[in-house]
Amino acid sequence: MANLLESLDDVLLLGPGPSTIPPEVYRALGRRTLGHMDSQFFELMDGIKESLRLVMGTANRATITISGTGTAGMEATLVNLIEAGDPMLVVVNGFFAARLAEMARRLGAVVDTLEFPWGKPIETKEVEKRLSSGAYKILGMVHAETSTGVKNPIQDLGPPARRAGALFIVDAVTSLGGLEMRADEWGIDALYSCSQKCIGCPAGLSPVTFSEGAMKKAAGRSAPVPNYYLDMNLLMKYWDGSPRAYHHTAPANMYFGLYQALQLIREEGLEAVRKRHREAHEHLVAGLEGMGLSMLVEKPHRLPMLNTVLIPEGVDDAAVRKELRAVHKIEIGSGLGALAGKIWRIGLMGYSAKKENVDTLLGALRKILRR
Amino acid sequence: MANLLESLDDVLLLGPGPSTIPPEVYRALGRRTLGHMDSQFFELMDGIKESLRLVMGTANRATITISGTGTAGMEATLVNLIEAGDPMLVVVNGFFAARLAEMARRLGAVVDTLEFPWGKPIETKEVEKRLSSGAYKILGMVHAETSTGVKNPIQDLGPPARRAGALFIVDAVTSLGGLEMRADEWGIDALYSCSQKCIGCPAGLSPVTFSEGAMKKAAGRSAPVPNYYLDMNLLMKYWDGSPRAYHHTAPANMYFGLYQALQLIREEGLEAVRKRHREAHEHLVAGLEGMGLSMLVEKPHRLPMLNTVLIPEGVDDAAVRKELRAVHKIEIGSGLGALAGKIWRIGLMGYSAKKENVDTLLGALRKILRR
Repeated sequence: MANLLESLDDVLLLGPGPSTIPPEVYRALGRRTLGHMDSQFFELMDGIKESLRLVMGTANRATITISGTGTAGMEATLVNLIEAGDPMLVVVNGFFAARLAEMARRLGAVVDTLEFPWGKPIETKEVEKRLSSGAYKILGMVHAETSTGVKNPIQDLGPPARRAGALFIVDAVTSLGGLEMRADEWGIDALYSCSQKCIGCPAGLSPVTFSEGAMKKAAGRSAPVPNYYLDMNLLMKYWDGSPRAYHHTAPANMYFGLYQALQLIREEGLEAVRKRHREAHEHLVAGLEGMGLSMLVEKPHRLPMLNTVLIPEGVDDAAVRKELRAVHKIEIGSGLGALAGKIWRIGLMGYSAKKENVDTLLGALRKILRR
Repeated sequence: MANLLESLDDVLLLGPGPSTIPPEVYRALGRRTLGHMDSQFFELMDGIKESLRLVMGTANRATITISGTGTAGMEATLVNLIEAGDPMLVVVNGFFAARLAEMARRLGAVVDTLEFPWGKPIETKEVEKRLSSGAYKILGMVHAETSTGVKNPIQDLGPPARRAGALFIVDAVTSLGGLEMRADEWGIDALYSCSQKCIGCPAGLSPVTFSEGAMKKAAGRSAPVPNYYLDMNLLMKYWDGSPRAYHHTAPANMYFGLYQALQLIREEGLEAVRKRHREAHEHLVAGLEGMGLSMLVEKPHRLPMLNTVLIPEGVDDAAVRKELRAVHKIEIGSGLGALAGKIWRIGLMGYSAKKENVDTLLGALRKILRR
């Protein structure tokens, strides 16, 4: 019987995630599995919690991974913190903030959006102004907008959210591991991320952290969380209970992979990992600009891990990506929404964030674009 | 830095799941990852759909895997098919049917339960009687009740559900792969399972199938599915759209593992796999009875993959399981709910369902129990 696994290409992943994975993480994924109620497995979960706290800059007890992808982490954060009718402000300057707003509406929040142009950062003053009415119970925004390559100044918005009585939710799907994150210092009440970008593990898990205030809201709801699978109250009995209470059968091998990926980050050092991301990014931008290409985002607001480059006039977007993938075995990303056909999204995340990968890509692009 | 992965035991998993995994599946899990929008990855997803249709006995177009564990599959099935206020009948004779009822209530269904004793199968006539009122829009039940080891006669309940105008939801978390499943012939509208039991892949995925009628209900709701991550309408655009539309970043390496596990089942043959489960089960029961132990469930209603054995009087439940795990590196399961302390749950699922594993367990039990 034909087995497609035998004919899959080895692809250099330089798109918006997943990123390329270190060999140690692959070995962890293929390790002999373990029961989800095994005491050795609980120790491993404790190790994951400890590493996540370091990477997230938090002492929150409720620091775990959701057993689903980043979108499940978004869902978990919202479904635990939104009660039907809750007024929520979502600051939107890209595709993933718009998704956050849509998901919140589905869960019964009364969502206002504050919109900024795609490709520009949000403006703190405007957000503070909207918050100051005190009308919102929740503020949601995206740290690193994967659709545009923009870094948003979330570090300034915790205090005004707190003053306005709003819980502050941050999407750190693309940023975590690659950008500084000080969840506690910045006043973040809930944060979710993913495994497959700067953390360096395949897709499938979503690290989250909830502050005491956020957990208090999740525990004090008038009706149970309308999502058994993602109920943080139940999840904490499994992750932190004494004794641990069964909730779902944890995807043990994915947890192995995440544990190993976080170990590698700790061994390299958080600041060294961020520096590697920055240097790869600078090397890429210099190379692209040397070919006469331009970046979508102005320099101070660029993400190191997600680079958006304008497609030169006359160049066929899809044809270039197809040749990169077919001939050079390199994946980059297309534009989303209004930016489709206008930009490429080049990810330098986790294990992919290396100058030699940048050189490989630049060489291939020079050939294809004849520049 | 200490790495816990290096000191984990190799455990023979004979509990209620996860089961032991074939080496081919471990290799697939550790394979170089691929982007979730890569055309080779889409081919692999098509292969998963085709294999799942075979294993489930269905031609349903909407046959996919949810990117979460079996509990996420339960959630996906319910959140797509329940609209607030929908009357639903859940037939309960164990822990997992009770979970089904709780989850449905959280989603706004008005749930009636029809209860049967734990350890006995449900009675078809009673269910038909309750359905005949025509009051229910949804009927939910569990095929193989993991908490008791009982096989329920789901094959008889599709037609009465249809006559009563109710969608028929089946939990096949423990049965799929190890027991015959003819979803279409039996009139099942929605079915969910998991990866880590008889399918032979680690935990993390939940295969589901939705009939045309079920998809029609999911598509025709008065409000969007209140769960973006598990919305079958969106998921089908990713799994079956032309072109495929991004929804979430699929956990590629888990999909590799599931694909490989399903390949192995097809290579061995569906009937041969079921026979292997039956034979391992018979071998276990003979061995246990030879030691003077008794099964909880009467012979005609026993599951081959989940064996519940009464703990002999005077034997310390936890001490025996602890010695099995610590000395013999074997995991078996404890009783749940009312059966805690009264039974052990011995799983013979997937790659674990082999006579040599049974012999290993029986040998260890004889030593510990001195029988």
